[in-house]
Formats: sequence, C-alpha cells, structure tokens
Amino acid sequence: MNRPTSIASLLFCLAVLPPAASQAGDHPKVILTQDGVQKIRAALGSVPLFDQTLARAKAEVDAEIEAGIDTPIPKDYSGGYTHERHKRNFFVMQKAGALYQILDDEKYARYVRDMLFQYEAMYKDLPVHPKTRSYARGKLFWQCLNDANWLVYTSQAYDAIHDYLSAKDRQRLEDNLFRPFADHISVVNPRFFNRVHNHSTWATAAVGMIGLVMGDDELIERALYGIPFGELDTTAKDDDGGFFFVEGQEAGFLANLAEPFSPDGYYTEGPYYQRYAMYPFLIFAQGLHNAKPELEVFQQQDGVLLKAVDALLNLSDARGDFFPLNDGQKGMSYNNSGVVSAVNIAFLYGGGNPGLLSIAQEQGQVLLDDAGIAVALAIRDGRAKPYEKKSVKYSDGPKGMQGGVAVLRAPGDEIELVFKYTAQGLSHGHYDKLSFSLHEKGDEVLQDYGLVRFVNIEQKGGGNYLPENTTWAKQTIAHNTLTQNATSHFQGKYEIGSQHHSDLYFYDDSNPDVQVVSATDSNAYPGTVMQRTMALISQEGFEKPFVLDIFKVSSASTHQYDLPYYYMGQVMQTNFEYDSPSPPGVLGSQNGYQHLLLEGKGVPASGISRFSWMGDRRFYTLTSVADDADQLLFTRIGANDPDFNLRRDAGFLIRRNDVGNTLFATVVESHGGYDPVSESATNSNSFILALGVVHDDEDYTAVSIEDLDGQVRILALSNSDASASTTHKLKVDGKALSWTGPYGYFEAK
Amino acid sequence: MNRPTSIASLLFCLAVLPPAASQAGDHPKVILTQDGVQKIRAALGSVPLFDQTLARAKAEVDAEIEAGIDTPIPKDYSGGYTHERHKRNFFVMQKAGALYQILDDEKYARYVRDMLFQYEAMYKDLPVHPKTRSYARGKLFWQCLNDANWLVYTSQAYDAIHDYLSAKDRQRLEDNLFRPFADHISVVNPRFFNRVHNHSTWATAAVGMIGLVMGDDELIERALYGIPFGELDTTAKDDDGGFFFVEGQEAGFLANLAEPFSPDGYYTEGPYYQRYAMYPFLIFAQGLHNAKPELEVFQQQDGVLLKAVDALLNLSDARGDFFPLNDGQKGMSYNNSGVVSAVNIAFLYGGGNPGLLSIAQEQGQVLLDDAGIAVALAIRDGRAKPYEKKSVKYSDGPKGMQGGVAVLRAPGDEIELVFKYTAQGLSHGHYDKLSFSLHEKGDEVLQDYGLVRFVNIEQKGGGNYLPENTTWAKQTIAHNTLTQNATSHFQGKYEIGSQHHSDLYFYDDSNPDVQVVSATDSNAYPGTVMQRTMALISQEGFEKPFVLDIFKVSSASTHQYDLPYYYMGQVMQTNFEYDSPSPPGVLGSQNGYQHLLLEGKGVPASGISRFSWMGDRRFYTLTSVADDADQLLFTRIGANDPDFNLRRDAGFLIRRNDVGNTLFATVVESHGGYDPVSESATNSNSFILALGVVHDDEDYTAVSIEDLDGQVRILALSNSDASASTTHKLKVDGKALSWTGPYGYFEAK
Repeated sequence: MNRPTSIASLLFCLAVLPPAASQAGDHPKVILTQDGVQKIRAALGSVPLFDQTLARAKAEVDAEIEAGIDTPIPKDYSGGYTHERHKRNFFVMQKAGALYQILDDEKYARYVRDMLFQYEAMYKDLPVHPKTRSYARGKLFWQCLNDANWLVYTSQAYDAIHDYLSAKDRQRLEDNLFRPFADHISVVNPRFFNRVHNHSTWATAAVGMIGLVMGDDELIERALYGIPFGELDTTAKDDDGGFFFVEGQEAGFLANLAEPFSPDGYYTEGPYYQRYAMYPFLIFAQGLHNAKPELEVFQQQDGVLLKAVDALLNLSDARGDFFPLNDGQKGMSYNNSGVVSAVNIAFLYGGGNPGLLSIAQEQGQVLLDDAGIAVALAIRDGRAKPYEKKSVKYSDGPKGMQGGVAVLRAPGDEIELVFKYTAQGLSHGHYDKLSFSLHEKGDEVLQDYGLVRFVNIEQKGGGNYLPENTTWAKQTIAHNTLTQNATSHFQGKYEIGSQHHSDLYFYDDSNPDVQVVSATDSNAYPGTVMQRTMALISQEGFEKPFVLDIFKVSSASTHQYDLPYYYMGQVMQTNFEYDSPSPPGVLGSQNGYQHLLLEGKGVPASGISRFSWMGDRRFYTLTSVADDADQLLFTRIGANDPDFNLRRDAGFLIRRNDVGNTLFATVVESHGGYDPVSESATNSNSFILALGVVHDDEDYTAVSIEDLDGQVRILALSNSDASASTTHKLKVDGKALSWTGPYGYFEAK
Repeated sequence: MNRPTSIASLLFCLAVLPPAASQAGDHPKVILTQDGVQKIRAALGSVPLFDQTLARAKAEVDAEIEAGIDTPIPKDYSGGYTHERHKRNFFVMQKAGALYQILDDEKYARYVRDMLFQYEAMYKDLPVHPKTRSYARGKLFWQCLNDANWLVYTSQAYDAIHDYLSAKDRQRLEDNLFRPFADHISVVNPRFFNRVHNHSTWATAAVGMIGLVMGDDELIERALYGIPFGELDTTAKDDDGGFFFVEGQEAGFLANLAEPFSPDGYYTEGPYYQRYAMYPFLIFAQGLHNAKPELEVFQQQDGVLLKAVDALLNLSDARGDFFPLNDGQKGMSYNNSGVVSAVNIAFLYGGGNPGLLSIAQEQGQVLLDDAGIAVALAIRDGRAKPYEKKSVKYSDGPKGMQGGVAVLRAPGDEIELVFKYTAQGLSHGHYDKLSFSLHEKGDEVLQDYGLVRFVNIEQKGGGNYLPENTTWAKQTIAHNTLTQNATSHFQGKYEIGSQHHSDLYFYDDSNPDVQVVSATDSNAYPGTVMQRTMALISQEGFEKPFVLDIFKVSSASTHQYDLPYYYMGQVMQTNFEYDSPSPPGVLGSQNGYQHLLLEGKGVPASGISRFSWMGDRRFYTLTSVADDADQLLFTRIGANDPDFNLRRDAGFLIRRNDVGNTLFATVVESHGGYDPVSESATNSNSFILALGVVHDDEDYTAVSIEDLDGQVRILALSNSDASASTTHKLKVDGKALSWTGPYGYFEAK
C-alpha cells in the first residue's frame, strides 16, 4: 500500500502543488459509462420500468429548474430548511447529470454547472456548520456524514457534465470546491474518515468517487486505504458511544469492506444501517469496477458485497420492511432508493439473479445508468422470477465467528421469527443477546422496539437520536430476552459488550415442519450461561405454525430473571388473576425499567400461565410453563417520557425470583382472526391443552405439548453436544426416546 | 287497524285453531320470485359479479353439505360454538335455498329440508336459552334478537324450497317450528317485539317474513302493527338502559319505520346500528313489495327507506367505514352484507341510481335474487358511475325537528369533519352534544372513541357490551366536546337525555372553500347555552383545508370547562411548558374521568396554545386561543381498566376554570407528511402565525387567522340571527365588516 506518512505532510503537499484539472474526452466513466449511455439511448421507449423512472426524474428535475437554484447558507439540523435544501440539491444534480447524458439536452448540463458554481462561490469561505452537536461538523451540513452524501452524488453529476465544461471551469471547480471538500471530510476530520463505521464508508466512497471522476490517484488511494493514523486517540468515543479507533485497525474503504461484513454478507450494525451503507459501498464499487477493473472489487472478500445484497433482502419481513435490529427505524424497507441501487448493481455485476428482478418490479424504479438499464431490459424480456425468502442464518463478525442472526420462516403462513445472537453491532448495537421478534404477514406480533429517533423530523431533537434511545431502546429490558437482576447485559457498557458475542449452538431447517435454532451466551452476565432454543413447528392439530421458546439459564448463585414479551395488541383473556393498580406504578428507576408502567400484576393459577391477545385482527396466545412463585406483569412503555418520545406499547413479563438454574418454556401461537365487517371471530382460542417440562438437566431438556385432541409431542434437546451425528437416549415418563443430532421431535401419545 | 285485543286471547286462538299448511304453487314469491329466477337463469354465465357471487356461495354451501348438518343444543354466548353454529346455519340455509332455485339442483333443497327438520325435532321441547343476561332470552340464542335473525334468513330458505316439500312436511314445519318460533319472539316476549328499536325491527321483519311465506295474514298483521300493549310496564328499561315503551307509542314494523328515521333518512341510533337495521327493513320491504304491492312500502314516509340507504352511505369515511357515532364498532363498513342488500334493493326499487353500482363493485358481491341480478346486469352493461360523497346535513327525529348531524367534506383532500347535534339516539346514544370527529383519507385524526365492546368475541364478556361502555364510552369526557364541572351532559341520565336534542343554528356549504355548520344546545347543562360553529376552510397560504372550531359557552354562573381533542398519534412539539408526572395520575373518580391518566400538565406560554402531533405519517397542528389561566392537559385513556377493555389512546384537553361566559377558538390543520422509506419530512410545521378572538359578545363573534405570509382572514358570526337575508355590520380593529347571512369571511390584511 502506498500511503503518505502523515497528515501534516499531506496537507503540505496539497498546499504547494495544486494539480491540473482532469482531462476531458472519456467521461462519463464512473457510474454511467459512454457504452451505457449508448445502450440506454438505443432502448429508450421500449423499456417500461426505465422509461417510467426517466419520466419521473425529468418531471422532478424540470420542476426544480423552473423553481430556480437555491444554495442557502447552512444553519439547520436535519429536517430544517437549509439541510433539506442542500440534500435535495445533490439528489437533483445527480439526476440532472443523468438526464443530460441520456436525453442529450444541454439545459440539464447548464443546471448542474450553475449549481456547482454557486457551491464553488460559497464553499471556499464557508466556516464549519454552526450547529455543534457532531464530533465531525460538516460545512454544508451539521455533520460530515451528510457532506459525504453530497459528494457521492455530486461526483456523479460532475462526471456526467465533465466533458461539457471548459478546462478552466473544471480547474476552478476542482481547486475551489471538490478538493477542499474532499479534504474537509478526510484529512481535516480524520476521526470521521478513518473509522470502520458507516460514516467512514460514506466518507471514503465520497473521496474515492470524486477521485475517480477527477482521475486523482492520490484521492483514490486515500479513499481505499485511509489516512495515516499518526498519534490519534484510541480512547475517544463518538456521539453514539462507539470508539473511533481500535489499536491495530486498518482504515479506508477496503478496511470498511473487510470489517463490518461477515463472510455471509451480514453487516454487523444490522439491516437498517446496512441499507444506508450499501449505497456508498456499491456505488463506489461500481465506479471502481468501471475505472479500476484490475481491483476486482466485486470479488473482494469472496464476493461479500454481492452476498450482502442477498442478506439485506432476506432481513426484511413479508412486506419488505427491514427487521429493526439494533438502532433501526421501523418502516424502512427495500423500496428505499439505496436498495434500488443495491439490487440493480447486484443484478448487473452479480450474475443476473432473476429473483432480483421481482424486487426491482416491486420497487417500481431503476437506476438511470448501466445497471438500471440492464434490470429494465431483463424485466421487459420477462426474465423476472419471485424472490423467495426462506429460513436462513447469517454469521456475524469479519470471519463469521461472532455469533449471528437467524430467520425461521413458514412461507405459506408468512410467519417469520428473527433470532439474534450476534456481536454488539458497533455503536448502534443494542444490549439484547438472544432476543427475538415475531412477525406475521409483515405485521409485528412480538416486537423489537427499534430506535428512539424520528429521523429527519426537526421537531424531535433535530431528527437525531433522543435520550430515550440510550435509556430505553438499547437496554436489555426493552427486548424479548432475559434481564438478570434488572441490569442490562454487559451492564449496558459498550466497552464490555463490544468485546463479546453470543454463539450459535445449532441451526437446522432441514425439516420444514420443525425448524430449530439454538444459541448460547455466557458473557452478558458473568457467571451465568443462557441458552435459548427457538423452534417453528407446523403440526397437525394446530391452525398455523407455532413458536416453541425454551430459555435455559444456569448460574451458581440466585438472581431475579425477567423475561418480557412485547406483544402488539390488546389483552383478550388470561388464565390467571391479577391486580391492576390505578394509576399504574413505575417498574424501576434505571436500566430501562424507569420507562415501564406496571398495569397489572398476578401469579400463575396453575402449572401454566396463559394469556391471549388480539393484534391487527388476529388472535394470539402465549402459553408458558409456570413456577408457582412466578410473577406475571403487564407493562406499558411510556413512564418518565417527558417529551412523548416513546410509543405506549404493551408488554407481558414473566418474573422469576431467587433462582439460579431455571428454564422458561413458552409457546406462542397465532390463531384465527376477526373481521369487523362481518363481525365474525374464528379460532379465537389456543390449540394447546397442556405444556410441560418433562425433563431438564445439564445434558438434556425435553418439553411436551398437548393439543386439544390430547395428542402429545415432545421436543428433546441435547444441551451439551450439538453434533449432527451423535445419537442420544433419554427416558421420559418411562418412555425411551432416541434421536440423532442436537434435537429430536416425537409423537408421545 | 285490525288488532287482536289481548295477548291472552291471541295465545288462546293459537292454541285451539292450528291453521292448515300454506299452499304450494307460487313460491318462491317473497324475495326471490319466479320471474326473478327465470331472469337469473337466462343471464347466468354472462354477469360476472353475479356469477362470482354464485360460485362463492356454491363453494361455501357445498363445503357445508360435505361437513354435515349440526344443530347443537344451545348453550353459548356469541363467539361460542353453539351460537356461531346456529348463526352459520341460517346464513347457509338462505344461500342453499337460492342455489336450489337458481341451479335447479335438488341436493340444495334436500339440505335445507333436512336441516329444517332437525330444527323442528329440537324446537318443540327446547327451553329458553340457558344464558340469562338478556331481557328477552331466545331459544336458539341467548337473546331473541338472534332468534329473529335466524327467522328472517330461514324464511327465505323455506320460501325457496316451499313447493319442493310435501303438504305434510310443510304442515309439520309450520306447526312445530315456524309458528311457535314466531310466537316466541313476539307474543311470548312483547317487551322485545313491541318496541321502537332495532331489536323490534328484526323481530317484526322475522314474523312478517315467515307470515308472507306461509300466507298467514295474522302473522303479517302482527308484524306490521305489533301486538296490543295491554298493561305493559312503561318504566321498565332494557339491558342498555333504554326504555321499552313510551306512553302512547305505536308498535310493529310500520311504527319502527316511522319513528327512528328522520325525513332525510338519518337513523337516530347512528350509522352502525342503521347498517344492522337496514337489512330487516329492506328485506321485509322487498317481501312486502312482492307479496303486498298495495302497501307501497317503499313509498311509505315519503320514501324514507330509500333515502336511508343514501344517508347510510354518506355517513362513511373515505374508506367506506361508518363514522362510529354513539355505540358503533370501528371497522364496520359498507362492505357489510347488510349494506350489500341495502344497495342492491335500493338500486332495483329506488330508480336505478348508477352511483350505487360503483359501491356494489367495491362490495364485490350481490344478492342472489331479483335485486342482485339487476345490479349485476347494470354493472355488466357499463352503467356504474362513481358514488360521490359531498358535504351533507341530516336532520334527526321522526319529523326532522330534533337536531341532526352534518359532514363537511373537502373531497380532493379527503378531509371529513363529522359534527353531531342530534337527539339522544335511543339506548345506544352517547352523551356528546356538539361533538365532532375529523378524518383524513379514511384515517382518524381526532377520533370518536366508539363503543367498548368486542362484538362476537366470546373472551371479552361474551361479546357483549362491557362495563366501560357505560363508565367511559358514553360519558361526555370521552368525546371531542365540552364537559362542564366534570359531569356528563344530562348528568349522563337517559331519562333526561332522551327528552332533549341540540338544534342546528345554520348550515352553509354553498361556498366549497368556506363550509360552515353551527349548532346550539341549551339542555345538556341547565342554565348554560353552548354554541359550536365548525368551518372547513380552503385558503391560499395553507397546504390543505383546515378546521376552525369556535365553541361559545354562556352561563350566568361560573364553572370548570373541559374541552378535549382525542388526537391519534404521537406528540411532536408544543409551544408551552408542561410537567410530566411519572407515574401518571388519574384525572378523576367518576363520569369517565376515572379512565383518564394524566401524562402532562402545562399552562399557555403566550396568547396561543399550540401543539403538533404525527399520526399515520402525516403532521397535524392544533392552535388555540389561550386564556392565561388555562390548564393544558395531556391525557391517556386506560386508567381503572382491569380487563384491558380500553385502547391506550391519547388526548389533549383544554381546561378553563371559574368562568361563566367564554369562547374557545381553535384551528386544526393537517400538513405535510413523513415517508419512512425516504426518511423525508415535508411541511412539518403549521401554516399559522397567529390566531385571535377579535370580537365576542352576545350578538357577534369574530376570529382572525394570520398565516405565515402575514395574511389575515376573519370569520365573523352572527350569534343571534341565522337568517340568510339579514345584513350585519361589525367594526373590528377599526375596520368595518359587513356581510349578509349568518357568517362572513374576510381578507383583513
């Protein structure tokens, strides 16, 4: 690697040696290419999806041209006028550049040129943005991240009109705007540029993209390999609590490619941020593919970029909304423009998977470039096939050795169970080892809360993370997993959490009727081992597949265990008595408990705790093997929430006190439905008659389920040997069970 | 009128003189007719909507025939097996009868016959239903109401197979099943049969329908005119708190037709119950039209039955869901099968309004009879036109003199304001004089809570009304209207409320940009006059039409006034400070206040109280002229709700203490939106700069609205003269305003 040796020398170089402007003649060449433009022009009018996208882009850009250019002096946070205007400007410039190439109409080139010169006139004397919240303040925006967004898009606009401009114009733009802009988001802000983090993915892609357009190898090198670390502070943390630098880490685009993705393509921050990071990853990769084919960027890390697109799509629900693991805003879906890019680029450079075409059809738009025309042509030619989402597991960590995430799916019923046993997920990670969420037809059944933020809504804390993201959303009690002694995993400390991960014990989806995943964690609470096994079982006697959740906890000392289920809907019935304090109390004073109201408190009536609820016109029942001393709590999110930042969602919490080793065995069923038009309720009751733990020791755990017809089935687990070839024997109620592999499933009666 | 003179003599007659079985040869004749069957058979295969409906009915009935007949011994409430099974039986019998006629396939006739004989064998020895909750217990069902439902449908099935049966079979069914059945729901339960109430509409239709089929004039008479009152108790009340009988009232189907409908077709219980009552009204009317054309039933009361269909459709939101006035379950829509009947029958017997055809298309099904084939043929022939819902007002009361309800609509934006100034609405009425709700594109913006009941969901109190319907839903504080001294209108007493109604002051939708409705109430709180004026204003400077709400209260003594707005969504921002108690307190101990949690309490910061919220991806702002002493409360429904029967919905409450005369002037705006896929927020701020009361006395009230561009408009009202021809003059801020009619709208700057 060829790297400058220090920031000082780099700045010195820049100061004394202004390079000449880039050469005309072969642009566009980075994203749109000259070949691509020819292909597009030839196909226009005969490729519906491309034609429609083009027409919408033209209408949008024409309206902007009509309205006139505005490049206001920056002053606002996201959601505010100056922020939204500059954001809109770069989107529109990128489109206008493409329109110029495709339609060969100079008015679009003039528009981009005029806007660029307004920026050029403004930029050289522009101070850093007046808002001080970010660790790396931009100039156009309050954070360098948004400045990097600007440059990734604007590079494409510049590429598109590059040869339209005079050499003098290019020189002026490159000297006064693009190079200083690239420097501000890199050498001026090394803590922003040199991380392994989605911020740095954007930053390096931005610098690299403009480098490719300008043919500036130094910028490209800087983008690919980062800037020298020098004596940067490795203990400093960013606004979200993540470290900037870890001892020995590498920097630059390629390091960002190596580090956050597992070999399976899972992005350690989770799908919401993956969606955000995919655009710079793929657009810069596309540019490198076109301008530096020798790098073979799509083959880097065993083709991880293309695998990542599949992983991202698979981490969405039946509606295409991403599962909100870690900090994820609900409602974000694969219809996002960044995913449009990802799908188009993956199709063109990843072997033409026809399943991607059906996603592109759903998205209803394509890129206005080589990748987009390839997709639109293939769809026109009838090559689209359904994109089938199946049960899947993804490893986490750069080598795939840091746990992972699994999705069990029952496709016919569109029931999806998401089970998380990942690493921390960088600064956007939540303290939720072995948590899960359950979804049906794209509706949340048992929710993951997601983040506490209203992205780009200025009224809500400038659109930024709100305090309750830390005090609630990241805390363990906010998730469908176990909290010990009312304290979050790793004490809620990033320094600790980021050093650990859970481990997959086994995953087996070979039998579509009994799909099982099991994972362990022994670090969240030192001295305590948690093992959670989740099965999605399709079984005669039941209307739909149900979830069997077996949570085994082992500890030499005694604790309080809280296991909540954040159900979505309204309580229908319980089989136990409970008190309802009015007004409700607050469940605790810290670690997220301060945000929970206590609406009900009961004790089990019998060996089973059961409650049913109705959510979105369907009935659900949770049935759990009860300990007589259990407390059953109905909670409501929203205490200590002075700014109404939290949703008033419900929870059902099983509390077990003063135990060391214990087992929670629970079934969650979806059954029947309600139609308010016919006012008819069907299958409003559970199909389960009884549930029992029929064996539980260090080696084996077995749970029995009896249905309404008196049929009994047993799921038996080996707790210490997950080998697929070991044969196990276990006597349950005098009956000998024998199975090979980590689990067995039996008809017991 | 020819009425028997006493119940005793009637029962005596029935006992000694069993009539002969009805004559074969001219059936079916009541709903399906012989002509209609010929027309249907000729058209089959060429009328898509009819063909599809028939295919679905055939598949459904074939599956039931395959599954076998079950007529279990009654034991359950609604939602339970025996209830749902008997309910399904009558629906299926009615369809099977139609299939027999249309497809000429004996297996359907046999199926109906076999089921009828199972009922015949069971009915004669059947005791009343074991569940005791109803004031009029049925035999097949826990309440006579459902038995009446059974007979309305089963009469049609019997009519369809009448001529297929032997005289002996008919005799047996009529003697052992139909006559005793008709007697049980009439002479045995006169408190059920002889009311003016939807219960009695079903009861009289049921008795009349079977009377028409059997050609039994005595039953028909009984249905049309009721049974003699004798010495019935006029102080008794039903389960819902309504009176059975009022001194001097008439009974029977025709009285039920005269009483609850206003001349405009508004049904005094509200659209939810109207939807339920329309089926027996119209199906029996159709039967009378066919079998007793001389009655001219569709022309009765100036054609009110046909007007009622239009009123019902107009009282639905942009999605077709009925506004939940009074006891109404949300989600009920004009796709309900009862409304399918209403629309089909209104089309055939009401002049063939082509707008009804587009509703039928949305409904996706038609009746399998003369009316259904007429609709399907007309749709096939391309005669459907959009059903346009416009601003409209309906009077309430049999003579239209008891207030009413108005809907102001801005069709392009699909904003709908529903303003209620009706009479009590019988036993299902709420204590909510001058209340309103606001809807946008079918979403609730400011909600009417509706009822507290989970209809037909057995787990929730047997599917019946829950206690919170009385303690919360009916109370005034549960509505978007004024509560004085924390006490409901009419002290929440039906005896008082049912004697009064509000009054329309004026309604003017002649200017689509400034639509205004104003109503008064002087009975809800003796000594206090309330006048509420609501305007829907489309105005340059605003993105969408906004609501101006002027609530004027006059009283010689001082009171506490609470004016809540039950907004749907999450608080975005306020312009005032407030405290957030945690845990929240409870607002009161009775009259509905015991169900409200207090989540925030503040005082106005300036002359204006403003808060904005986000609901379903749109922004809303409420701006209200503030009194310095106002208290601004954030409430949440759900205190003292031990069975989780209430939704945890939010409210914003303006409280004004120790005043007699006062004015609340408030604007509610919808603006902008949020897209979680692009994460872009548009127009997230209000368009209002200032709001002020610029004049307010006994004669005139004027409110000024200043937009962000500094444009000021004034709405001026005459408070004492609503004549359209009076010219008014008022000086405001030194400027002379002059207008003719009850209101004027002015550009003031």
